[in-house]
Amino acid sequence: MDTPHFLDLFREFKQKVDEYIFNKLPINHDIPEIELLYEMMRDYPSRSGKGLRPGLLMTFNRAFGGSDEKSLNTAAALEIFQNWIVIHDDIEDGSDLRRGQPALHVKFGMPLALNAGDALAGKMWELIYENKNILGNETAMKVFNEFLIMYSKTTEGQHIELGWERNRKWDLTADDYFCMCKRKTAWYTCISPSWIGGLIAGAGQNLKDAFIQFGEDLGVAFQLQDDILNLVGDRKKYGKEIGGDILEGKRTLMLIDLMTKCTKNEKRFVIDSLDRAREKKDPRIINDILEMTNKYGSIDYAISISKEKARNSRRTYLDQIDGNIVNDEYQKVIIDLIDFMVEREF
Amino acid sequence: MDTPHFLDLFREFKQKVDEYIFNKLPINHDIPEIELLYEMMRDYPSRSGKGLRPGLLMTFNRAFGGSDEKSLNTAAALEIFQNWIVIHDDIEDGSDLRRGQPALHVKFGMPLALNAGDALAGKMWELIYENKNILGNETAMKVFNEFLIMYSKTTEGQHIELGWERNRKWDLTADDYFCMCKRKTAWYTCISPSWIGGLIAGAGQNLKDAFIQFGEDLGVAFQLQDDILNLVGDRKKYGKEIGGDILEGKRTLMLIDLMTKCTKNEKRFVIDSLDRAREKKDPRIINDILEMTNKYGSIDYAISISKEKARNSRRTYLDQIDGNIVNDEYQKVIIDLIDFMVEREF
Repeated sequence: MDTPHFLDLFREFKQKVDEYIFNKLPINHDIPEIELLYEMMRDYPSRSGKGLRPGLLMTFNRAFGGSDEKSLNTAAALEIFQNWIVIHDDIEDGSDLRRGQPALHVKFGMPLALNAGDALAGKMWELIYENKNILGNETAMKVFNEFLIMYSKTTEGQHIELGWERNRKWDLTADDYFCMCKRKTAWYTCISPSWIGGLIAGAGQNLKDAFIQFGEDLGVAFQLQDDILNLVGDRKKYGKEIGGDILEGKRTLMLIDLMTKCTKNEKRFVIDSLDRAREKKDPRIINDILEMTNKYGSIDYAISISKEKARNSRRTYLDQIDGNIVNDEYQKVIIDLIDFMVEREF
Repeated sequence: MDTPHFLDLFREFKQKVDEYIFNKLPINHDIPEIELLYEMMRDYPSRSGKGLRPGLLMTFNRAFGGSDEKSLNTAAALEIFQNWIVIHDDIEDGSDLRRGQPALHVKFGMPLALNAGDALAGKMWELIYENKNILGNETAMKVFNEFLIMYSKTTEGQHIELGWERNRKWDLTADDYFCMCKRKTAWYTCISPSWIGGLIAGAGQNLKDAFIQFGEDLGVAFQLQDDILNLVGDRKKYGKEIGGDILEGKRTLMLIDLMTKCTKNEKRFVIDSLDRAREKKDPRIINDILEMTNKYGSIDYAISISKEKARNSRRTYLDQIDGNIVNDEYQKVIIDLIDFMVEREF
């Protein structure tokens, strides 16, 4: 068999997952108000995403000898997780756009959007419940447990980041950043998708620590690349407003690094610019701060850390996971996707 | 054995549930930010409530011959459900107070509070997961399924009510109100608590429809009494600001009834007063609208409907559920609590 390219493979997985999700999400109801709720629940899932998380899950599931029929329901639950989490995230961050369109709370108002996020989370748990008919009770309960861990890590990470913004905390170290990022991003983006994929196919519990190490490094590399693209990416490829993170006051590794390197006056300028209420921010600060991060090499620093994390992730994969894989043709897929995480432009 | 009075019994249950919950909710974490999240998760549960929902669950469980050891974990999950739902509800409604203290988003800001609500919802699902060790897999999965139904009904009801406010919809009938109220309140306040209580003790699936009928009437009666107390209650006993619902623009049965009875000019006045942004509302409208609802008999109407719903609930209980009860001493408890729902002053 020819080795599939992972982007093609992920496109195939994403298509399957989308079809499955739209079969599961309800459309019609006698009560018109409830039909609007259903429309809201289908809104974010219908906007195109990369399908990275379900792709990782289904790849590792195949790599460990599993079948798509078994993994699809859980991959769909994971995709729904991503969607309801970002509905709430967009409200929390006051983001206007999601995947190139107005955020859900911009379209329908905050109260309805917050509730639609809750309703979508309910759908996710419904799929997790249905696993009992697909995976049998024992594996279904294991997956349930893994979702609980992922859920808890993600809300903890989200809390840390939001807390920094609320408390205008800027005296942060790179380790603070990794500690937040691992919870906020790495768990639901890499650790849980890859580990649950293996688990459903019967991967041994003894591999879990390796998956955590592998996914943590890969997830942090992914987030760093996302933050880098947000500063210096090509708007057309990236699909979000360049510099949006600066206007949101997001504590990225670049900014944390910049704060330790720049002068006292520059630091005062950066903090003063970023701690303002969003509507009082001058969009010109994007350029000023971008120049500063360039001048002090903070972007290059973040790029080097991102590459280092990806290297560590690859090493963990090769040393501890690769040897347990059943279907060899997925080895190259996995290596390719590790590289993609730090080389992607979108 | 003496028949316990249900208020004493509920106090006993509430104490057990609180103790159980505070053992389950984490306190300490190496990362100080996460400790703040834990503090926020424990905030609402530590404010005193009536414990009506876990009380109903544990009463019906005992009535059907169950033991507290088996029902306690699920009763705690239900109490946690109520707490995270109202964290989000307070954000959606822009409520300032909850149980006499500042709402969570007032204390910590909206973003952290929204996320803490999500985190608390995660804890609820953790308890539902742990049921497998308490109830065995089969009953645990049944309870999981019942929580999914309750969750879905509640978010649907919440959506209907929020949608009415967002779309400034006032041409509503009593049936519209019942349809919303049954979903928003009756399911998680009465139907699911009483039915799940029975279910855990082994009550037959053939009783489910009776429980739905019983709980629906009881839940609507409960909500009506709540709305009545909000208008004409004793602030000290009731514990909330009298007339708060009017300032929130809440579509109560009293207001819906008033709209069908008052003059065109009065209707215009009411709609104009209530559809304003909250900060532009004149608190004096509370008295004006209260007088109008009195003049047109809309409060008496709501009281009569509340009593009728309670009567229907009692009849369903006596005709279809009572005969299946194993422990006779809980029959009077259940009848007393049906009466309490419409006679309570708090």
